[in-house]
Amino acid sequence: MPDTLTHPRRSDIHIESVLHALADPIRLRIVRELAKIGCDGIACGGIDLPITKSTRTHHLRILREAGVINVRPEGTSRITTLRRDDLDALYPGLLDGILAAPH
Amino acid sequence: MPDTLTHPRRSDIHIESVLHALADPIRLRIVRELAKIGCDGIACGGIDLPITKSTRTHHLRILREAGVINVRPEGTSRITTLRRDDLDALYPGLLDGILAAPH
Repeated sequence: MPDTLTHPRRSDIHIESVLHALADPIRLRIVRELAKIGCDGIACGGIDLPITKSTRTHHLRILREAGVINVRPEGTSRITTLRRDDLDALYPGLLDGILAAPH
Repeated sequence: MPDTLTHPRRSDIHIESVLHALADPIRLRIVRELAKIGCDGIACGGIDLPITKSTRTHHLRILREAGVINVRPEGTSRITTLRRDDLDALYPGLLDGILAAPH
């Protein structure tokens, strides 16, 4: 896994990158699933998506680098959580508004 | 002006298109200006932007087609307003969250 799992600090999160990361149906689906799961997070393979593993990795990377999700290694898997505290602090209402959208 | 100024109905607005439209610094700046101006709207040239007229037209078109702004002809100009009612009804909190973002 060459990916070093870097995450932006809260102060380095930019609204344009967050919106770009969320402006995709697959990534939005990942975020909706993570919002349902809550703080415990989920192994990356645990979200059922109609895409290949490499496409999934690509989408998770965009979300992670934008500051939308946190991915931490745990044993041989990676646990993904939504950075809800950071997003709610930076953009109060944004995430709830998006999650309220019909889909 | 070949552009026919079509606007999606509220029920035809999609979150992915709205987020994509907002995920750009120039378009976000337009939206922030329109939010400050409120219901009266502004002539398209009235927002001070460091871009050419054709680039401005391109950005306004993306915002309009996504359902973020309304553009109506008035005499020889076009008046632009933010579709705040539609966006707040569809995605409560989204716009406020975005407008709260540091910039």
